[in-house]
Amino acid sequence: MPRVVVDVMPKPEILDPQGKAVLGALPRLGFSGVTDVRQGKRFELAFEGEVTDAVLAEVEKMAETLLSNPVIENYAVRVES
Amino acid sequence: MPRVVVDVMPKPEILDPQGKAVLGALPRLGFSGVTDVRQGKRFELAFEGEVTDAVLAEVEKMAETLLSNPVIENYAVRVES
Repeated sequence: MPRVVVDVMPKPEILDPQGKAVLGALPRLGFSGVTDVRQGKRFELAFEGEVTDAVLAEVEKMAETLLSNPVIENYAVRVES
Repeated sequence: MPRVVVDVMPKPEILDPQGKAVLGALPRLGFSGVTDVRQGKRFELAFEGEVTDAVLAEVEKMAETLLSNPVIENYAVRVES
């Protein structure tokens, strides 16, 4: 069954306190070499039938109106089999 | 600059109230056809140098110890260019 995945990430110019918290924790846990961490959301949507272009257009609308805040977040829609 | 992406999702047998909330909101917003929604996290990690196999092994450890809770979540590590 194909799933449609929507990735929602804070825009590059937006401060990301969750990502910064992870970045700060890594050296304390002994991990080095990471220069930046951004944390966002991932949605997996399952559909009744086939994932057509019309379905993907609907998912774009869902991403824009419900899954993301377009003022501070970018989103990407893709099919994952 | 290549980024390493870590996707963290609730395990299939774990209840996902955030995903359920989205699933419940979709019909109210006029969207139909979605049978299930799961919500997880997406981390984007930037590195100083090249992303070698050793770096990916480190990221696996980060994912297991800091980025996910292995009791209730699965994770996937991949390079995204």
